Amino acid sequence: MADAGTDLSHKPIVVLVRPQLGENIGKTARAMLNFGLTELRLVKPRDGWPNPDAGPSASGADIVLDRAQVFETTAEAVADCAHIYATTVRKRGVTKPVLTPEQAAAEIVSTPGRSAILFGAERSGLEIDDVALSRAILTVPINPEFSSLNLAQAVILCAYEWSKTQDQAGTLVQPTEEEMLPPAPQAELEGLVAHLEAMLVPNRYFFPPDRAEATRLTLRNVLTKPGWNHLEIRTLRGVLSSLQRQPRDTD
Amino acid sequence: MADAGTDLSHKPIVVLVRPQLGENIGKTARAMLNFGLTELRLVKPRDGWPNPDAGPSASGADIVLDRAQVFETTAEAVADCAHIYATTVRKRGVTKPVLTPEQAAAEIVSTPGRSAILFGAERSGLEIDDVALSRAILTVPINPEFSSLNLAQAVILCAYEWSKTQDQAGTLVQPTEEEMLPPAPQAELEGLVAHLEAMLVPNRYFFPPDRAEATRLTLRNVLTKPGWNHLEIRTLRGVLSSLQRQPRDTD
Repeated sequence: MADAGTDLSHKPIVVLVRPQLGENIGKTARAMLNFGLTELRLVKPRDGWPNPDAGPSASGADIVLDRAQVFETTAEAVADCAHIYATTVRKRGVTKPVLTPEQAAAEIVSTPGRSAILFGAERSGLEIDDVALSRAILTVPINPEFSSLNLAQAVILCAYEWSKTQDQAGTLVQPTEEEMLPPAPQAELEGLVAHLEAMLVPNRYFFPPDRAEATRLTLRNVLTKPGWNHLEIRTLRGVLSSLQRQPRDTD
Repeated sequence: MADAGTDLSHKPIVVLVRPQLGENIGKTARAMLNFGLTELRLVKPRDGWPNPDAGPSASGADIVLDRAQVFETTAEAVADCAHIYATTVRKRGVTKPVLTPEQAAAEIVSTPGRSAILFGAERSGLEIDDVALSRAILTVPINPEFSSLNLAQAVILCAYEWSKTQDQAGTLVQPTEEEMLPPAPQAELEGLVAHLEAMLVPNRYFFPPDRAEATRLTLRNVLTKPGWNHLEIRTLRGVLSSLQRQPRDTD
């Protein structure tokens, strides 16, 4: 799986079947490239190709548009693909398996041969012939009372799930060890606790005496929990010192 | 986890901080409702609220817009939340943990208390003060060479991941058992094999004789693999019968 990212055969091809608006083709390219997909195929785009409306909405994903290939039929567009997924909702009587984007992504990266994901026209979706070409149906599980995914959103969810199968270690940069200071040594925490207690005693915080031990324990538990590092402890000590200097009302 | 869907406390609140375009507020509402999220909060929307540009791009997710609440500050918007996630890319020196949408969703549904996910303004993103309010940073792992997620796309990926933690059994309808016929009994398959073989023999398909057994075995393996049901076997028998009736060229 680790080298699937560099193996072209595990990157699905996005096939837009009879897309209507150039703007949506551009948005599709943008959605794809965000998650590392680059191969776009168009079946009979309504307004021909290239389409001047596509570029502006691609927001810089021109490489995807420039390389897009155009086909007359869906069958020609997927002729070199071993696995074809039809993005749609299964209709009664269709007996193909129904997969989520996550399940489809897992299949795509684990089976040999190129995969294509078909997306239908903006309003009408895929036709029965497109579904018949496909090995499986890909459906985004969605709010049954409000199902309103647009074309680029359906594409981005599929591209995102594919991307999740790839090695993401390099893309999410956690704080470095240097930045993420370890909790301060216990002695520093004790210093803070002692400092605070010393300030609280005169204010009768630990009164009455038979409750004092329990109250100290509670306070210590509260202060132990955050695991403050030494800079944070130093900050809090500064806060306490400052409070000591300022005259305050006491109860 | 099973009842998290009905427990409001496990549905994250989407907070748009200083959003600029009403259109993007509408698209956010649409993205949310697609995956069952309904609670939207707006911090100082640039053009005030309500905004006439929001409705048309919500594509019917009016319930989310109608219920949207407006706040002067981010702190007020999340005052009732126990867990606040800042959707951004971690900046050097920020020591908060960095989570993927998937990791954040897992946290949101498994910890008590309400969660809020903050999304910044279209171009500028979240400010340092918004991040300081947050317990963790939420980052969508994205193509490092092309990072161009728009606001509604970031929202939809988070809403989608939240939705995946919920029970999806009801939303993906697999073919019923009635539709998904079991493989036909072996006798029917044998009938098909015998029918085909009977047609192939005169065409010398099994020639030369010393290869015949291996060829039969190969053919049988090929025909066994699909697990055709009895309707499919009947169809194939019909095909063979039809081929027998039609005069054809033979080699």
